[in-house]
This record gives sequence, structure tokens and C-alpha cells, in this order.
Amino acid sequence: MKAIVDLCLVPIGVGTSLSGYVAACEKVLSKTGLNYTLHANGTNIEGEWDAVFGAIKKCHEAVHDMGAPRIFSTVKCGTRTDKDQAMDDKIRSVEAKL
Amino acid sequence: MKAIVDLCLVPIGVGTSLSGYVAACEKVLSKTGLNYTLHANGTNIEGEWDAVFGAIKKCHEAVHDMGAPRIFSTVKCGTRTDKDQAMDDKIRSVEAKL
Amino acid sequence: MKAIVDLCLVPIGVGTSLSGYVAACEKVLSKTGLNYTLHANGTNIEGEWDAVFGAIKKCHEAVHDMGAPRIFSTVKCGTRTDKDQAMDDKIRSVEAKL
Amino acid sequence: MKAIVDLCLVPIGVGTSLSGYVAACEKVLSKTGLNYTLHANGTNIEGEWDAVFGAIKKCHEAVHDMGAPRIFSTVKCGTRTDKDQAMDDKIRSVEAKL
Repeated sequence: MKAIVDLCLVPIGVGTSLSGYVAACEKVLSKTGLNYTLHANGTNIEGEWDAVFGAIKKCHEAVHDMGAPRIFSTVKCGTRTDKDQAMDDKIRSVEAKL
Repeated sequence: MKAIVDLCLVPIGVGTSLSGYVAACEKVLSKTGLNYTLHANGTNIEGEWDAVFGAIKKCHEAVHDMGAPRIFSTVKCGTRTDKDQAMDDKIRSVEAKL
Repeated sequence: MKAIVDLCLVPIGVGTSLSGYVAACEKVLSKTGLNYTLHANGTNIEGEWDAVFGAIKKCHEAVHDMGAPRIFSTVKCGTRTDKDQAMDDKIRSVEAKL
Repeated sequence: MKAIVDLCLVPIGVGTSLSGYVAACEKVLSKTGLNYTLHANGTNIEGEWDAVFGAIKKCHEAVHDMGAPRIFSTVKCGTRTDKDQAMDDKIRSVEAKL
């Protein structure tokens, strides 16, 4: 089962500058071989369910290891059985109707 | 790593009545041994990370098996290393300050 | 247009204890006359769109006024034109199918 | 109070192809003068709170007007009082640390 997710991870208890923690997550993702794209409110990731959610777990672990005592994440997750769809397909499908 | 999550699973392409699909997810959760609570906009679940996210995967699989071709879920996920906190503790902590 | 929403407001830059800020939001909501229910990962609120989102704005303002320099909120929002549904109806509809 | 939000609007009860409805929202946004960017799991929008949430309301109204009887949206919303930050700043801040 393939999943297209949006991960937005917020470290809590480390002040207001969070970009270093988000960058650490991007580095975690870069080692997974998954396709991912950073945007202004999160990171889109696509791949098989176990690989994607394994990566999200590693992001939580990495940010805790950096010293964040608490993390709040929001994950939006799409799965479908009717067709194989990539992240770029979703964007192109909308843009074709503008 | 323990996680407290809120799962809101929306089946797409099955009409407007979604309660049967949500009930199926509750049944999946009832077999996991995890602590969970249904509320008006989702289900709160607490437990070890792998057990919680394994259960969420099973919910997606169960809803697809019921015939839903597409699913969109929103998962809010909290983890912390500074203290052991249960779902009820979170609510009591707020109520104590009202 | 009536909305049923789930508000999860996370103050950033104020340490790890957030319950006092959530309690302040509950107090804001208590003055609105809206129907709302605290749960372990947020607060469900129902009412007319403008009243609900006006209340969410007031929560952000109240938490900033308490000294939080940054806030991240997740809002899940349901609207429907096919029937009038309250928060309790949603829960009962699922429970009837368990 | 400026807000940077991520809007993910899911029409329910209209089948599995949702891109036409998302395109309609993009058209609504294009008339607001707000800065916005489509991504694979939503649309990031920045501007003054009332303008941003007024636009989100118009998106719900437009999608209901197209015939969708039910809508579920997820909105992530960031506000801050410590500095003026644009969506592009958030991305650049992360990329500078990679």
C-alpha cells in the first residue's frame, strides 16, 4: 500500500527557531531513498506505507536526540487502491483544470 | 517511544455517510489492546509508536477492504521524553487550570 | 454555513508545559456561547462558521497576549449542506454501528 | 495578525476525482490577492488572518456550490509576534541548514 503524506513536525521546548530541527528531518529523509519535497508548512513524502512511516518515526527520534523534549506532528496521509498516483500527478491534475 | 495520536480517517468515493467506516476502525482498534477514545472529529489512541502506527495501517487496510477506493487521514501525533503522560493526564492538566 | 471543527493549538517558545495556554483557550470559548468539548488532542467546537473561526482567532490572540511568541494550530473543519448534524450526532452514528 | 496556513480541502460524496474542486479553490484564491502556492497535499496561503480565513470560507462555499454535499478540511495555521516571516523565508531557513 503506497502512501502520499505531508509531515509537519513541531519540536516543543526548544525556543522559537525550528528550522534546524526541520533540516535534521530532511537529512533523515535523504537517507531513506523516498521521494520528498519540502514546502512552507511541511514536507510531502511518497512511498510504501512502512517505509514512509518508518521514516517519520526516525524523524521523531532524531529530533528528540537533538534535545527536544516534546514533539507535536501533523501527518496528512492519502492511500488509494483505484490507481497509482505520484505527488507530481496530483499537482498536474489540478493545474490542468485551472 | 510512546505516542499519543488523534486519527481522523475519511474514506473518499463512498458517498457521504462515513460512520460505518469509522465503526470498522473502532473494531480494528478494539483488537489491538491499545487505549483509545472516540470523539466528534476523530479517535485518540495511545501506546508504543509501532503498535499505534501499525493499528492506523490496519484501519486503512480495513476501510479499503470495505470498498473505499481512496482514503485521506489526518494524524496528530505527540511524543515526549521528559515525562510519561497518558491521554487522561492531558485533559486533567488543562481542567485543573480552568 | 455551520462548521464542526477540531482545534489543536500549540504555543511555541514557552517551554513544554502547554496546559495553561489550552485552559486560556477554553476560557475564551466559554465566553462565545459556542458548544465545545475538550479532548486529549484538541477541542471540538460547533457553530456558525464566522462564530467558530472568530473564536479561533481570539484563542490565538489570547495565547500571544500571554507571552507566546509563536503558535502552530491544526484545525480540522467539516461543513455539510445535506443535513444538519451536531457533534453528538457524529459520535452516536458511529456507536450505533459498533 | 498575519497567518501562514496550509489548506487541504477534501470534498466528500462526489467520487474519487477531486482535482476539479481543488482547481476551483485555486481560482477563489487567485481573486483574493493573497500569496498562495499549491503543493501535493494542499495549498499554502499567507496574509492577514481575516483575509486568509475569509478565503478559506469562500473555498468551502464554492465547493458546496459545485455540488459537494460535505467537505472536510485540514488547516495548519502559524502566527507569530516575534518577527515578520513569509512562506519563502521558512523554506530558505531550512535549506540554509542542510
